[in-house]
Amino acid sequence: MDRIKLIRPSDKRYSILAKEHWDGVAKPLGSFGVLEDMWCRIAAVQQTDRPDISRRAAVVMCGDNGVTAEGVTQTDSSVTLACAEAIACGRSNINALAAVYGADVYAVDIGMEGDTDCESVIKRKIAHGTGNIAEGPAMTGEQAQAALCAGMDIAAELAEKGVKVIITGEMGIGNTTPTAALSSVILGLPPETVTGRGAGLSTEGLKRKINAVSRAVEVNSPDPHNAAELLSKLGSYEIGGMTGLFLGGAVYGITVIIDGVISAVSAVLASMLAPRCTDYMLAGHVSAEPAGRLLLERLGLRAVIDGCLRLGEGTGGIMLLPLLDGAAALYYNSHRFDSAGIERYVELK
Amino acid sequence: MDRIKLIRPSDKRYSILAKEHWDGVAKPLGSFGVLEDMWCRIAAVQQTDRPDISRRAAVVMCGDNGVTAEGVTQTDSSVTLACAEAIACGRSNINALAAVYGADVYAVDIGMEGDTDCESVIKRKIAHGTGNIAEGPAMTGEQAQAALCAGMDIAAELAEKGVKVIITGEMGIGNTTPTAALSSVILGLPPETVTGRGAGLSTEGLKRKINAVSRAVEVNSPDPHNAAELLSKLGSYEIGGMTGLFLGGAVYGITVIIDGVISAVSAVLASMLAPRCTDYMLAGHVSAEPAGRLLLERLGLRAVIDGCLRLGEGTGGIMLLPLLDGAAALYYNSHRFDSAGIERYVELK
Repeated sequence: MDRIKLIRPSDKRYSILAKEHWDGVAKPLGSFGVLEDMWCRIAAVQQTDRPDISRRAAVVMCGDNGVTAEGVTQTDSSVTLACAEAIACGRSNINALAAVYGADVYAVDIGMEGDTDCESVIKRKIAHGTGNIAEGPAMTGEQAQAALCAGMDIAAELAEKGVKVIITGEMGIGNTTPTAALSSVILGLPPETVTGRGAGLSTEGLKRKINAVSRAVEVNSPDPHNAAELLSKLGSYEIGGMTGLFLGGAVYGITVIIDGVISAVSAVLASMLAPRCTDYMLAGHVSAEPAGRLLLERLGLRAVIDGCLRLGEGTGGIMLLPLLDGAAALYYNSHRFDSAGIERYVELK
Repeated sequence: MDRIKLIRPSDKRYSILAKEHWDGVAKPLGSFGVLEDMWCRIAAVQQTDRPDISRRAAVVMCGDNGVTAEGVTQTDSSVTLACAEAIACGRSNINALAAVYGADVYAVDIGMEGDTDCESVIKRKIAHGTGNIAEGPAMTGEQAQAALCAGMDIAAELAEKGVKVIITGEMGIGNTTPTAALSSVILGLPPETVTGRGAGLSTEGLKRKINAVSRAVEVNSPDPHNAAELLSKLGSYEIGGMTGLFLGGAVYGITVIIDGVISAVSAVLASMLAPRCTDYMLAGHVSAEPAGRLLLERLGLRAVIDGCLRLGEGTGGIMLLPLLDGAAALYYNSHRFDSAGIERYVELK
């Protein structure tokens, strides 16, 4: 964990240079909107005005959540296991998208209830699922640290391979419940405001879930300013692993894309542990879950995609890749004022 | 124009079949959000539950606007001409994106002030720019009909070539002014509410533009329910051409993507001429211009991309293509409940 002391702000000199390059593209100034800004953020992370996003990887953290005992989900840990194996073998939703958008996909067993002998699953299991947060802590402090380390180690390995963009993803039946509990404490909002239907809960199920979130917050009463405590008391292994990916991205100079609400709460935890790591984040999309938008606002990040996506696996985050590829195409390949014979569209304010 | 009588609603039986297919993909029901709905709309247009979006084309309608005499722009018609030629020759912004996303690009001279001898520009010029709407009508009723026909003819030609998705685009210095005037009348809102800075107008310039819009509405006082009159009095050739593309898409069974605010006002005009043609439309993005969101609401359409894009040329609309390609990948290539050994995530409401 000492690694997070290495985190530096991204180098804004390069975002300024990138903005100057944008202003030379023959188009109204700033007219590619938020995607221009995202591209400039990537330049600052990579410390170059010629950023390269050709190598990218989606990392899907897979784990189980003891709180499913409260009847807050429609399915159980067997689905986590089956989906993790499907992702590792290239058959799931994230793989179908990664094939179109060009990304490697990794599934990590960071805390699944079930064990797999599928060789393609990366084995970083910390425990067989978390404790039931409605009755006590999700995990010990040591386990929380181990989850963070697993995420950072994976970021290090990907950096070694030349990966420049990581898409965070998760697969863990029940994990919108710890997400809601964490969001409630972090945002200071009542459980009913930040708790959603997850994969598609009934109204009765939603009531049980809000009740479980309330009890989790009450029983564990974590310090809202202590991210490590929040993670161990109310978190999950997937959330810890993704928090580690965000931290690792900042340590190793990789841009990390936030997926949905579970990923967003992990990003907020990472920003509490190391505020500068937000420089390395991009918001993939606005989740359909109620806390999604609020958590992005907390991070000061703006998403471009807002389509009620709530599939998980990193599928919302990966949708940003082709839009960034579009930004790259304009940045590198479009005609420029200095060669197009078009006067600049500049007017003083 | 008799062709628009051929417009039928899209066939909802196929959107229902497509939704059933979506519900078999191993993921939470409905969790790909708005993109699932868009895919189902395409199925209804193509009358199949196996839609194909592999052939697509961006059509950029290029024209000039007499209202530039009012000082509502930073540049002049020479930029329209230079950009039209750059688009036709593959050097502009839309071409850079089309190369990444896979689409043909066409530039149409539907009413540019300048003439081009560039062979790649499609020649459908109706006049050398419109009249100044702040002083009188943009064009005659016959010219408005000619613009609609040009758009419909181009849709017919693309249908012949097997194109399944048209992205509407425009290039026309000054055309956010007629757009604001049309939006003001159609939405019943004051000019200052629907008039934006376009390509990047100063505060002084914005005042002149609002004044020009007010005068245009007053001088022409069009019937707000008569789309043909609105187009001829307050429109522009680009807007007429795009309106024709929307109508033609509905006549020839092609999905047509709305780009920014100029395209959105054209879509509304098309829907006034033939209400069923909205079935054939998809919203590409929410424009940064103030009327953008309101016009989409008027059409009852929801966009997925909202990133302050205001570049023109169809660049916002084309960004939807890779997201639809993602939808296609999940629809056709992801694992399904019946083969994945995963129980359905179904819970009764």
